[in-house]
Amino acid sequence: MNVLVRDAVQNDMKQVLMLIKELAKFEKEPNAVILNEEQLVRDGFSENPKFKCFVAESNNEIIGMALGYPRYSTWKGVTMHLEDLIVTKSSRGNGVGSLLFSKFINYSHSQRVKRIEWAVLDWNVNAIEFYEKNGAKILSDWRVAQMDEDSIKKFCNNESI
Amino acid sequence: MNVLVRDAVQNDMKQVLMLIKELAKFEKEPNAVILNEEQLVRDGFSENPKFKCFVAESNNEIIGMALGYPRYSTWKGVTMHLEDLIVTKSSRGNGVGSLLFSKFINYSHSQRVKRIEWAVLDWNVNAIEFYEKNGAKILSDWRVAQMDEDSIKKFCNNESI
Repeated sequence: MNVLVRDAVQNDMKQVLMLIKELAKFEKEPNAVILNEEQLVRDGFSENPKFKCFVAESNNEIIGMALGYPRYSTWKGVTMHLEDLIVTKSSRGNGVGSLLFSKFINYSHSQRVKRIEWAVLDWNVNAIEFYEKNGAKILSDWRVAQMDEDSIKKFCNNESI
Repeated sequence: MNVLVRDAVQNDMKQVLMLIKELAKFEKEPNAVILNEEQLVRDGFSENPKFKCFVAESNNEIIGMALGYPRYSTWKGVTMHLEDLIVTKSSRGNGVGSLLFSKFINYSHSQRVKRIEWAVLDWNVNAIEFYEKNGAKILSDWRVAQMDEDSIKKFCNNESI
């Protein structure tokens, strides 16, 4: 398989959004994606882009993507966060995920960050094995806390939860 | 206790750094903080600040702080991340944490984000109870993965892990 990993451009966002939706389905949240193509283009390709995206291309098709952005650690300074690493189902098992992961880690290294971070589902054992093999640590004692839009509104309006 | 919660200014960073170090000790990583005051000032108060910080002040002393920054969800768009919420030990139990938390959530709401996220240690039951009481969900199935500076370098130099 002939695969090119490159910086994403605006025209890729339609196919990138399809990958995002494919991953949401895999993660058992098929209806969670409210973002659309126009927002992705605006957020990723304006003067202050909110994320960096790489795509894997084969035969003029986008078959995978890695998307991330800077964060800030009060212990380490600027870090990078890998939000999504996706390879479409029919192209898995060919090393495309490794190519995208490597591209993102090398890009982050070039930004001189002292940490790269991401989240993984505890039942996604293949992903965890891949990450550990490549030098990542899976932290067992930290939990993710989230307030969704509804909870934020209720909190700010002093409504009962 | 007379407490004022306000935007942090450059001159607060010395005391903010002391709070950061106090929290690192509480989280059993006393040597993890490599950031210094100059970096905090540069990163938080330059043209493109990397974080937003609020402080709680009482009797001209900084007794607490909340620090966060925007992230990007490929499901929801721009979100906010609460990196640290700290109240110095001698001032706990007086509602200062609630004031800072409320300030950060209201600030995030004013930025129209659709999600606010943070991390909490699974043994920090007081914090978890507080967050849940205020409408947050603790996600049980997501794990945090991290590559530190050494692992990043080894990966990029193709050295064995």
